[in-house]
Amino acid sequence: MIQDKLKEPSITLVGAGPGDAELITLKGIKALQTADVVLYDALVNDEILDFAPATATKVYVGKRSGDHSFSQDNINKLMVDYAFNYGHVVRLKGGDPFVFGRGHEELDFAAAHNIPTQVVPGISSSIGVPGLQGIPVTHRGLSESFWVVTGTTSDGKISADLHDAAKSNATVVVLMGIHKLKEIAAIYQQNGKGDLPVAVIQSGTTVNEKVAVGTVDTIVGLTQEQGISSPALIVFGEVVSLHPKFELVKEVYDVVTRK
Amino acid sequence: MIQDKLKEPSITLVGAGPGDAELITLKGIKALQTADVVLYDALVNDEILDFAPATATKVYVGKRSGDHSFSQDNINKLMVDYAFNYGHVVRLKGGDPFVFGRGHEELDFAAAHNIPTQVVPGISSSIGVPGLQGIPVTHRGLSESFWVVTGTTSDGKISADLHDAAKSNATVVVLMGIHKLKEIAAIYQQNGKGDLPVAVIQSGTTVNEKVAVGTVDTIVGLTQEQGISSPALIVFGEVVSLHPKFELVKEVYDVVTRK
Repeated sequence: MIQDKLKEPSITLVGAGPGDAELITLKGIKALQTADVVLYDALVNDEILDFAPATATKVYVGKRSGDHSFSQDNINKLMVDYAFNYGHVVRLKGGDPFVFGRGHEELDFAAAHNIPTQVVPGISSSIGVPGLQGIPVTHRGLSESFWVVTGTTSDGKISADLHDAAKSNATVVVLMGIHKLKEIAAIYQQNGKGDLPVAVIQSGTTVNEKVAVGTVDTIVGLTQEQGISSPALIVFGEVVSLHPKFELVKEVYDVVTRK
Repeated sequence: MIQDKLKEPSITLVGAGPGDAELITLKGIKALQTADVVLYDALVNDEILDFAPATATKVYVGKRSGDHSFSQDNINKLMVDYAFNYGHVVRLKGGDPFVFGRGHEELDFAAAHNIPTQVVPGISSSIGVPGLQGIPVTHRGLSESFWVVTGTTSDGKISADLHDAAKSNATVVVLMGIHKLKEIAAIYQQNGKGDLPVAVIQSGTTVNEKVAVGTVDTIVGLTQEQGISSPALIVFGEVVSLHPKFELVKEVYDVVTRK
């Protein structure tokens, strides 16, 4: 890489969207086209890197559950070092940078080093992935709100907010919760919501997409049967009944309850 | 317009994003490039229409509060008529089609007429607009979830969900609630949250963007002083304290409470 000594350091936080490379924004593409360095996460589609110049340095800083080779501190330092040494760093993050993306921490770190920053939002999987599966997060007569909660907080637990969410009438979308699906379903059962429609969607908008549609009482078994694993999101709510697969769930359910 | 009699009808629901024309996705642009007709809403940036061919018919079907010239039924019928007569209709909607966008109703109507449909998600203003203002909807130590609620339900009322949202620890984003800001703030006050940070953002990501940052107790006055009006969204939560303007709020507040 030819280093331009005159380049001013700058950092752009870009949301890459849920997986499909074409779900990045035009603004995100333009940022990538002027990148000297791209730091990208595990859930970012590799095809998106092709929007950056061939000469740009591309660095994988992915963190997956259980793989802590790159801590947030390391990423922050890398980002700032590259900006000082090479110029424009695009920090490319799956989904939107501020939906459990720790984007603000990265902006803070850059600001502490007086590096100018910009932000380009991305399609959050919390909305886009259910939508593309035929599950609208809001729908007249079914849902007047949606609540997006993390299934894994910084100390590895289910967010306390999920206990309130399970009591609410909101469509609830749980990110990073697939490994705790049984516990999360139990919270809904404790609130008498065993019949509530639920969908689990793995690798939404990619070629590896898988979906299980059922109810709180059946979803754990269905997810195991279909071999659904991380990365996946969970959608709880009446809006899930709009999914084409739910007709089948309903027929089975009607037969069972008629016994 | 030259009409191609052989064209198959099809409909693509495209989210235009929050306002900035460059916040549309690459997939949305590609859909527009093959559009024969574009039906677009009030909150869609006109510049986005330029991605469609010059020969495409562009029809404004906007609904603003109090202006009901185009009912949802009329839009559904127009959409289907255009598809049968001209081919590919892009239904271009502000934000994301499924965040209070009635997207599913339009897909349903198209399906009832056996017209194939596709969906392209958009950046929802609920996440992107606060994010670009420096307010992350989630942030370690401040918020483990965010809850998006409508301020105006189909019968013109504040959603009942907002009463639960005001009790929760979630970051709460209220869309279409600016005309009821006083009532909504009162709900938070009844829950003892007069000091909770609040931001009101008008016309986010556009040249008309305005922002007021304060607390539940001060936000109504601040919004009036700054002449903030519709379209605007409201963000309630500790994450609002990360906004650069909040430092000032905090200083004033500290002086007052020290008295």
